[in-house]
Amino acid sequence: MRQDQEQRAGATLANFVAGTSWADVAAQSHEAKRSILNFFATALGSAYDPAVTSALRTLSPFSGAATSAIVGRTERLDALGAAFVNAISANLLDFDDTHPDTIIHPAAPVAAPILALAQARGCSGRDAITAFILGVEVECRIGNAVSPGHYARGWHITSTCGVFGAKLLGLSADRIANAIGIAASQSAGIMENLPTAAKNVSVGNAARGGLFAALLAAEGYDASARAIEGPLGWARAMGDEPDLERLVGGLGKSWEIEKNTYKPYPAGIVIHSVIDACFKLRARLNPGIDDILSITVQGSALLLARGDRPVRNERDARVSIHHCAACALLLGTAGVPEFAEVIVFRPDIVALRQKVRAELDPSLPDGAARVSIQLASGETLSETLLAARGSLADPLSDLDIEAKLRDCARLGRTAWNTDTIIADVWRLDGLADVCGLMSPYDVSAPATGETVAPVRAVCGKS
Amino acid sequence: MRQDQEQRAGATLANFVAGTSWADVAAQSHEAKRSILNFFATALGSAYDPAVTSALRTLSPFSGAATSAIVGRTERLDALGAAFVNAISANLLDFDDTHPDTIIHPAAPVAAPILALAQARGCSGRDAITAFILGVEVECRIGNAVSPGHYARGWHITSTCGVFGAKLLGLSADRIANAIGIAASQSAGIMENLPTAAKNVSVGNAARGGLFAALLAAEGYDASARAIEGPLGWARAMGDEPDLERLVGGLGKSWEIEKNTYKPYPAGIVIHSVIDACFKLRARLNPGIDDILSITVQGSALLLARGDRPVRNERDARVSIHHCAACALLLGTAGVPEFAEVIVFRPDIVALRQKVRAELDPSLPDGAARVSIQLASGETLSETLLAARGSLADPLSDLDIEAKLRDCARLGRTAWNTDTIIADVWRLDGLADVCGLMSPYDVSAPATGETVAPVRAVCGKS
Repeated sequence: MRQDQEQRAGATLANFVAGTSWADVAAQSHEAKRSILNFFATALGSAYDPAVTSALRTLSPFSGAATSAIVGRTERLDALGAAFVNAISANLLDFDDTHPDTIIHPAAPVAAPILALAQARGCSGRDAITAFILGVEVECRIGNAVSPGHYARGWHITSTCGVFGAKLLGLSADRIANAIGIAASQSAGIMENLPTAAKNVSVGNAARGGLFAALLAAEGYDASARAIEGPLGWARAMGDEPDLERLVGGLGKSWEIEKNTYKPYPAGIVIHSVIDACFKLRARLNPGIDDILSITVQGSALLLARGDRPVRNERDARVSIHHCAACALLLGTAGVPEFAEVIVFRPDIVALRQKVRAELDPSLPDGAARVSIQLASGETLSETLLAARGSLADPLSDLDIEAKLRDCARLGRTAWNTDTIIADVWRLDGLADVCGLMSPYDVSAPATGETVAPVRAVCGKS
Repeated sequence: MRQDQEQRAGATLANFVAGTSWADVAAQSHEAKRSILNFFATALGSAYDPAVTSALRTLSPFSGAATSAIVGRTERLDALGAAFVNAISANLLDFDDTHPDTIIHPAAPVAAPILALAQARGCSGRDAITAFILGVEVECRIGNAVSPGHYARGWHITSTCGVFGAKLLGLSADRIANAIGIAASQSAGIMENLPTAAKNVSVGNAARGGLFAALLAAEGYDASARAIEGPLGWARAMGDEPDLERLVGGLGKSWEIEKNTYKPYPAGIVIHSVIDACFKLRARLNPGIDDILSITVQGSALLLARGDRPVRNERDARVSIHHCAACALLLGTAGVPEFAEVIVFRPDIVALRQKVRAELDPSLPDGAARVSIQLASGETLSETLLAARGSLADPLSDLDIEAKLRDCARLGRTAWNTDTIIADVWRLDGLADVCGLMSPYDVSAPATGETVAPVRAVCGKS
């Protein structure tokens, strides 16, 4: 790495962003579309969640011209407000995409503001995809540079996606560098708030703050050239000496979007291998569930730290190996409905959950799990799973993600037309603007009874 | 301290806020008015600064109904936007109030959102003062609990003022606790950006984020009951085990507002004693400046860390002992004009600045300084100053603060009527609403040529 790169990470990233165009990222565009499709899936699934409705109600009196859609709904806000709300809905089910090296969920804070701004300004699909790939690249590289200590200190997510908006706004490299630096001054969000709505606020702010940083940089706001890596900069304030090689090494040669993964289950990602192992065990169970005396889940310290916890509510259930194992064994499924209150407190699920105990096996890597069932017969069944479905080693197919989107949209009771969204995302690089994608209201056949606006919204240009 | 207080600092603070009314804080109201007067002084001084104008231009397309004044100007934004912009202008000159134990500048992130919301909702002066005193109390106590390590790690300011809005919104203690927790998830801002406009963004966000937290809590958003002090909470994420006694001990018995101080000079506060010492030396100089061979400034490690730096621009000058000493000795003054470009690069100031050197004297307390002048005659003149003007030991008088406001307003070229502001702040507890205070446009005699709106703005009720 060159010395000036070490000293000016923001400028290096900014030059890279400013100098990258569609032709440079076209090879990554299919993965970007998968990620954007997954973004729509999770946002549609939470479109009418009370947390989304509350955020929308709070922001409505504080919105300028309503240019940008709230995904899955008929309301609109200005681009800053829509970025905030859509990042919340995309993240709310804990069902969004995951960058395994950092456990960042890349799309919510990047796609939300890009699509909101692109809709407001009538940007092309190619511009939106290019900005998205670059936004994810910068976000994940900054995450790489401070992982794993950053997460361990209590920080939930970075607000370092300012660059996307910078790209869509056509800013110079200098101003993109300022946007990155301004984003660093807005980065916030603590793990202690993870099971509460306050987590939504930091996720929404990450999206809004990135866009706001780009808008301020466009107006001439500046920032330290060393806001990320300087002695009193973001990385050290957040707890770690940054790894500059991981921040700027190989820019444009390797792409973080290619490491993105999509969850088949709306549960903590390290628990997915527990679910898959239980599916295998369920197929072998004979005669049945009632013969189970106890269930032992073995895994790394990470699995136990994240998943071995009491279940007091739906949020706990999503990160509980006990609940996930019980659903997979008893119901043979672990989708959004299995983490709703009615299932979480169902007596047979509760009873089975109480038979689960966790056990450390340091020989198992993170992401793997072994589940063993002790039967009344004295027999023990065991399955070891090294790579869960949806991981980089066993990725979801395009059709899997489409099916996930349709499932989520049905559960979210949205009137947005899923056929239109799926078709538009796959041909996004051919769309002259994203406005149709952001208003796929199917007036003739509302999906599940949600009242829809009678007129297809017109693309706003501000 | 009781065990439950230790475990639930947010609830303890929230119960205190919810249970405190005007009668409980009336004795502190005069100090609150001094602080609010100083807030107006500094905000008026920067009313037309390019950073304020840029922020206003950036936010204008993203504002709902424009209910709330931009201090010193005729434009308005919604309360969230006005809170952001007014906190920036109040802080921009580094001339705002200072809480010595933490070096927090309390008023900018608390008064800005209170006045913006109070104007939007037509709240009374007493309600605004009560909320302000409580906002400062919570902000400074949270700062106390993590000082001094928090600052040393690179954090600039807390966004912990959510409580003020909570008070004005009439929230229950539970919801105020949630507002505090939500504010913790928005707390951001790094020291590395201190000399840039990105610093304005974190100050503005502190004000906006506090108000936003209260508005979200009013809509039912929740937060961890241990967002501040929990194992993965704000305090530890920010770098320190919090001192809970300083957080919640003696609530309602001692008041942080009583420790507030107001700067006579728009320079780093630890440098003020250098300026005062130089004023004394100037009176003793005979024959004059040209006989000075060198100037030695002695002080604590803090003074040297903050003030011993090269001067490349106006921002550097404000935190430079070299520049402050040169102005005080050569010009006999150190007001806003002395930190403008024309003075910072004046040859005689540059020449005198270059004669200043810093020297550690660990026997001197923080806030003190000794300045010694070596003259061509061989004589050395020396002054030691233990308590600078404006410190708690030598506070500015009410008339001093009024004069500061008039000076700042003149420099800021605002058309707001300073007589009206001063009169309204002193009688704020008697005002039925704050709307007149927030629109003191003197149409018949504009102060300095700024175009004003022809109609006195009508109080907005949203």
